[in-house]
Amino acid sequence: MTTQPSAILRLHCPDRKGIVAAVSGFISEHGGNILHFDQHVDAEQNILFLRAEWSLETFDIGRDGIEDAFRPIVERFEMDHAIRYSDHVPRVAIFVSKYTHCLIDLLARHQSGDLPCEIPMVISNHEDVRELVESFRIPFHHIPVTRETKEAREREEIRLMNKAGIDLVVMARYMQILSPLMIDAFPMRIINVHHSFLPAFPGGKPYHQAFARGVKLIGATSHYATENLDQGPIIDQDTIPVSHEDSIPDLIRHGKDLEKRVLARAVYWHLQRRILVYNNKTVVFR
Amino acid sequence: MTTQPSAILRLHCPDRKGIVAAVSGFISEHGGNILHFDQHVDAEQNILFLRAEWSLETFDIGRDGIEDAFRPIVERFEMDHAIRYSDHVPRVAIFVSKYTHCLIDLLARHQSGDLPCEIPMVISNHEDVRELVESFRIPFHHIPVTRETKEAREREEIRLMNKAGIDLVVMARYMQILSPLMIDAFPMRIINVHHSFLPAFPGGKPYHQAFARGVKLIGATSHYATENLDQGPIIDQDTIPVSHEDSIPDLIRHGKDLEKRVLARAVYWHLQRRILVYNNKTVVFR
Amino acid sequence: MTTQPSAILRLHCPDRKGIVAAVSGFISEHGGNILHFDQHVDAEQNILFLRAEWSLETFDIGRDGIEDAFRPIVERFEMDHAIRYSDHVPRVAIFVSKYTHCLIDLLARHQSGDLPCEIPMVISNHEDVRELVESFRIPFHHIPVTRETKEAREREEIRLMNKAGIDLVVMARYMQILSPLMIDAFPMRIINVHHSFLPAFPGGKPYHQAFARGVKLIGATSHYATENLDQGPIIDQDTIPVSHEDSIPDLIRHGKDLEKRVLARAVYWHLQRRILVYNNKTVVFR
Amino acid sequence: MTTQPSAILRLHCPDRKGIVAAVSGFISEHGGNILHFDQHVDAEQNILFLRAEWSLETFDIGRDGIEDAFRPIVERFEMDHAIRYSDHVPRVAIFVSKYTHCLIDLLARHQSGDLPCEIPMVISNHEDVRELVESFRIPFHHIPVTRETKEAREREEIRLMNKAGIDLVVMARYMQILSPLMIDAFPMRIINVHHSFLPAFPGGKPYHQAFARGVKLIGATSHYATENLDQGPIIDQDTIPVSHEDSIPDLIRHGKDLEKRVLARAVYWHLQRRILVYNNKTVVFR
Repeated sequence: MTTQPSAILRLHCPDRKGIVAAVSGFISEHGGNILHFDQHVDAEQNILFLRAEWSLETFDIGRDGIEDAFRPIVERFEMDHAIRYSDHVPRVAIFVSKYTHCLIDLLARHQSGDLPCEIPMVISNHEDVRELVESFRIPFHHIPVTRETKEAREREEIRLMNKAGIDLVVMARYMQILSPLMIDAFPMRIINVHHSFLPAFPGGKPYHQAFARGVKLIGATSHYATENLDQGPIIDQDTIPVSHEDSIPDLIRHGKDLEKRVLARAVYWHLQRRILVYNNKTVVFR
Repeated sequence: MTTQPSAILRLHCPDRKGIVAAVSGFISEHGGNILHFDQHVDAEQNILFLRAEWSLETFDIGRDGIEDAFRPIVERFEMDHAIRYSDHVPRVAIFVSKYTHCLIDLLARHQSGDLPCEIPMVISNHEDVRELVESFRIPFHHIPVTRETKEAREREEIRLMNKAGIDLVVMARYMQILSPLMIDAFPMRIINVHHSFLPAFPGGKPYHQAFARGVKLIGATSHYATENLDQGPIIDQDTIPVSHEDSIPDLIRHGKDLEKRVLARAVYWHLQRRILVYNNKTVVFR
Repeated sequence: MTTQPSAILRLHCPDRKGIVAAVSGFISEHGGNILHFDQHVDAEQNILFLRAEWSLETFDIGRDGIEDAFRPIVERFEMDHAIRYSDHVPRVAIFVSKYTHCLIDLLARHQSGDLPCEIPMVISNHEDVRELVESFRIPFHHIPVTRETKEAREREEIRLMNKAGIDLVVMARYMQILSPLMIDAFPMRIINVHHSFLPAFPGGKPYHQAFARGVKLIGATSHYATENLDQGPIIDQDTIPVSHEDSIPDLIRHGKDLEKRVLARAVYWHLQRRILVYNNKTVVFR
Repeated sequence: MTTQPSAILRLHCPDRKGIVAAVSGFISEHGGNILHFDQHVDAEQNILFLRAEWSLETFDIGRDGIEDAFRPIVERFEMDHAIRYSDHVPRVAIFVSKYTHCLIDLLARHQSGDLPCEIPMVISNHEDVRELVESFRIPFHHIPVTRETKEAREREEIRLMNKAGIDLVVMARYMQILSPLMIDAFPMRIINVHHSFLPAFPGGKPYHQAFARGVKLIGATSHYATENLDQGPIIDQDTIPVSHEDSIPDLIRHGKDLEKRVLARAVYWHLQRRILVYNNKTVVFR
């Protein structure tokens, strides 16, 4: 909720003594005021994860110089790191097919100022949602996909998104399986929502699977898309109780609420640069 | 919470007109006052499930005669039915290994009057919990099991339970896989708890599996034991959120709370004769 | 999920023997097939609540005759009752001020077929949401309110709604306190959402109150509006955990999700005629 | 989950630049390996809260010297601070009256190693639970209380606890209101559980109040006891849904599960020194 620009540093590295002191010392020595400082050690893997956010108002290094100034620390501790700035508003492309609940939910949150991003485009393999999207004054692209045209279409989508400077791709119940082409173009920058509590019920028709098994709760999962379908790093999950009274249409209806929530939360955390990924798992600093 | 004895009828049958009227008419014509009346139609399978509970205070048929009097309705609608009486206090045997959280939780609920049953025995393959069990004034049986002795030991357990008139067997984190011998001796009368949200993470070490996958919630499932491990009819499930900060011991510790809850609820509902089973799924009238 | 028209009967009356049999017998004798049958006895007040839904397909009384035919049972048991038909699609008016999250959520659910009603109008004391509402092809009425004009404006609104045959009024974060005039015009037919777990934090700025108290969860409550502000019969409530990290804007943002959910559920249950009201409390048959 | 001793520092102070760097620098310069480092800024009050835990294995200052060595930082930033050591096992006294669910739950967690403390005594105003407590091999003290003897009894209790070196007092449904004498003897070291989601339903019989209001969820709250009944800093809260079917005994029964959970979590976090208190609110670093 800060209004002055801040720097956001995320990193992971082998855990050693002195990392927290080195990072906070760097910020402090250059006049930065720390707004958030989160750290996590995975004791099993001996990896340290760190996220620091500090105000640039009184920081005595300009943005051009921060990477260079920080490099010695990166090298000393063998860090894998990224620095972003809070006033860089991420640009998000939303993909959707026929179910619109996640799409409308995201657009409504965006409109009321609850999603700190720009949404320069919505892409769909169906024409149906054009009017809805355009009523939110967001450009709509209809890109139909068939088995034969899939690769060409994905190349077109990637070109479109690169041209628009897209930072994050959100699959808001987009019913096409992405090829490695797309995955590789936006590594750990494609968020998908699956309508089950993974790893249960991967693949198609999870609510039908859940009904058949007679489970007493249903769930939804948001995760980064990887080449392995429904197996990427999980960002958020949630469940709600169901009973014998719930038919498959009831499960689908209840599930939409879950899907909206876990997808919106994942997108929000990504936009706030709160997520680190390592070994197919996420660290989400909240 | 009625204190006068009541009759509890559970049934399922092909759905047809007139079932509710026939059942409630039977109760009414004989002077019974309906306390609970629940009905559910599985539209897909066209099966009706019904549970009725009525006070026997003014009922004009004695217990000896109820089955006979009700038989014509059973035959007319091809019902699969059971009649129980609220003043028959079910007798429960609890099996436990080394983890005691579910056991103590059940014994404490029982002691404070929240589990309407008698517990004539706790059986364990370890001697460790004898003192604990006996401090609740409940007989303890130590029946160690090895691969070689398993069948003989199960025969012994079944004999012991039959002799004591056991109605329900509760596996409170009992770490032995039951053989068909035991399953067949207590069909749909063995409640087990599995420490994951099934069907995810069946089998051994589900918290380790959950940690490895990086899920953001963990769960527990209570179900009737069948010959297929972790695949019986689910009675209750619950989850809680976890984060990257939770180590495997943390997951185990949080999970215990879930296991206690879903097991205690399942046992409670079973004791209240609220559960019907059909096609490997449960109907739980709450 | 039935597609043929059905009748829905709701009633409450002093609990006596024979009510369930009389009602189900009435349905059965006239050839009706019971789809749902729910009953609840408030043992403390000795009141029976009942909801029955049956298919009219083979029912041998026409709609014109059902009330008359059922009257003897009503009189015999001193019932307070209502009969509705599933093919009467309720007509809903939504009131909104500046917060649009509940409004969009309801319109989106309606558009995707998840709210079984017609929405012939949205009324707001602000012009701001006109475009949004009209993009969903729903008529919008801007009716500004000042202290002086309040009564006249409410008369205008009531006239407008009566003319349009409105069955249910939904206050989707409408920031005006309703006068008894409006309450009386739609008794137990105005659903409001309050952004706290009532009875905690009634009145204005509940998230600020919650923050000041340092609570560890926030909530939302949907209820029927009565003359006593925030004290009407509660229909649904939900909470989510919060922590010291959540600022007031965070609470407001998280709370929106709760408000959407509890309001949409209350509206859905009302539309499905699942709610009975008695003594300022609700019975919700789910 | 560290087994070597560690130091745990908690502090709050006016937020300024350089605090994180100063603290982590202090740890680092003396060879300490940081295990946990949490920080929170209350932007409204401009207060920084910090908790750091570091391994003493390679720390080059002995325990005797740490306070002195750290003092300059405390003075420079006007810190309110406390340093504890992980191998100091806190000593807990539990107070109980007649409801035993929270007591048994705590004793069982303690027995299975999930509550890192010693429990040198349970005190009750009733004799009833002696056998239960002693079966866990914990000394039991029966200290009956009447209006006339209250002050004298509290003095006796305080003397007893001081003699036993008690660090934390847990009110496990102890049904006596504590006098300022007791509160002052253990400031922010008495944890109480109230059986409602405060601030709703303070005082006596909250489940009866909840039933009368017709709420759709019930809750429980753990908090530090202060002189103002049910108004101390909240540590944890939780709720579960209830319905019209739940009688007051049902609410009480369901509520017990909540009470156990929120009390056990609060005690656990306190024992792990994760809680900071400021302005009648808690910061709980999890």
